[in-house]
Amino acid sequence: MKIIKNIEEIRNTTKELRASGKSIGMVPTMGCLHEGHKSLIDKAVANNDIVVVSIFVNPTQFGPDEDYDKYPRDLKADASLCESAGVDYVFAPEAEQMYPDGYSTFVVPSEKMTDIMCGKSRPGHFRGVCTVLTKLFTIVGPTRAYFGEKDIQQLAIVKRMVKDFNLPLEIIGCPIVREEDGLAKSSRNMYLSPKEREAATILRKSLLSAKDMVKCGEKSPEKIYNKVIEVIKSEELARVDYVELVDFDTFDRIDTLAETNLIAIAVYIGNTRLIDNIVINR
Amino acid sequence: MKIIKNIEEIRNTTKELRASGKSIGMVPTMGCLHEGHKSLIDKAVANNDIVVVSIFVNPTQFGPDEDYDKYPRDLKADASLCESAGVDYVFAPEAEQMYPDGYSTFVVPSEKMTDIMCGKSRPGHFRGVCTVLTKLFTIVGPTRAYFGEKDIQQLAIVKRMVKDFNLPLEIIGCPIVREEDGLAKSSRNMYLSPKEREAATILRKSLLSAKDMVKCGEKSPEKIYNKVIEVIKSEELARVDYVELVDFDTFDRIDTLAETNLIAIAVYIGNTRLIDNIVINR
Repeated sequence: MKIIKNIEEIRNTTKELRASGKSIGMVPTMGCLHEGHKSLIDKAVANNDIVVVSIFVNPTQFGPDEDYDKYPRDLKADASLCESAGVDYVFAPEAEQMYPDGYSTFVVPSEKMTDIMCGKSRPGHFRGVCTVLTKLFTIVGPTRAYFGEKDIQQLAIVKRMVKDFNLPLEIIGCPIVREEDGLAKSSRNMYLSPKEREAATILRKSLLSAKDMVKCGEKSPEKIYNKVIEVIKSEELARVDYVELVDFDTFDRIDTLAETNLIAIAVYIGNTRLIDNIVINR
Repeated sequence: MKIIKNIEEIRNTTKELRASGKSIGMVPTMGCLHEGHKSLIDKAVANNDIVVVSIFVNPTQFGPDEDYDKYPRDLKADASLCESAGVDYVFAPEAEQMYPDGYSTFVVPSEKMTDIMCGKSRPGHFRGVCTVLTKLFTIVGPTRAYFGEKDIQQLAIVKRMVKDFNLPLEIIGCPIVREEDGLAKSSRNMYLSPKEREAATILRKSLLSAKDMVKCGEKSPEKIYNKVIEVIKSEELARVDYVELVDFDTFDRIDTLAETNLIAIAVYIGNTRLIDNIVINR
């Protein structure tokens, strides 16, 4: 496995591989890799000739008051995980190379898909995500790119962008990987104290309670929504950032349950903001 | 020469050509081709193995009160010009294929470069230009793309975008083609009455007067700016839309002359809005 920091080097490397007919799987990450990322990498390794993992803590997707500076970085550990998983190249550019002085062009995704959920509580976040992905896809030129369904809004927005820009790659969504007690794996889980870690299970519990309601015949989105809020509020260390219940296919808010429904939540446990979601068929 | 209307067909065609080592020159246009376009096509033909001219009246770069519906379209005449110039492919997609239902991702260029000149008088114009070019470059994958220096702000913004997004192509600017009396060639010149046509020479005259001032030692941008306005106003059929004097490298407005200075103007002659520009070294 090779770690490449230079844009032109990875570009020339993948260009040659493409020319020789190799398929390229890409897993774009911000590093601090955990089992969630590992599941994406495993899928990429299984289904492509070559796998590139990008590790780049992207400044343009952090708000001014967010944790860009203290976001955990550990290239050595990440590279070791990648190598043992069978990755061929880690692309880890510096911010100065990705956004040199004078940088000023951005990709602005669908307004309808960004004015709710994480897009609403993190203005500009998805602009940064789409911008860096446009750059990474342009540089690496993957056949397929893998994203976790934990960031379900990101997945939907990126699929939309790839379609809209006619980018020649396939976006593959992969299921959420969870701890034994149901907490979705996340780099931010390491910020949690033992008490908070326990409290954090409330996210998954609240979503499962919604699923149970639908299974038992509940048809009112409002009642389901209120139940999720109620369950989260039963945990005193938890504070709701948002709960959204939308039509999974359109991201429209709904008055009656759709064929496929998405409940997405963001919850502060202490100072740590966690997200989770569930897709429920009517 | 082949006319291709389908995105996947042109994509597969150019992909094969690239794979066989051919260089691809692209001239993105809105059709209604004149000698200005012809000069871009000639340069593309001279310097590339294969030349693709795109002809697409791009709805997203027209304002709601602008002339998208009325914009002249004559694919037959355009194709004939392309064929005799040695073009290999004309790519002429329908708007419905480029912007299908649900389309919602856009490229937003440098604010600093768009809040002056044509960007100021045509809000959203360059957003549309950058969005369609990102798509066209992604679809066709040219080695080089050719743009006229008449649309100097567009040229600068597109260069910036290509650099920012790491797009793997070279942007080539080509000199303005002029009538014998100095008027820059433009599809819109055909709307001028004989009297207006004569009056339209004032654009070039005003720019040359600025050049003369600098040659004679004038160092005050303000005095040069005022002189350009004064010359334009001496023509009673002319009405200034904007006159801008900026640092050509940064598009910053300036208090003292820069190494390389750009004067860009837009002037109404009757109801017809014409643009021109000049680059003057200190």
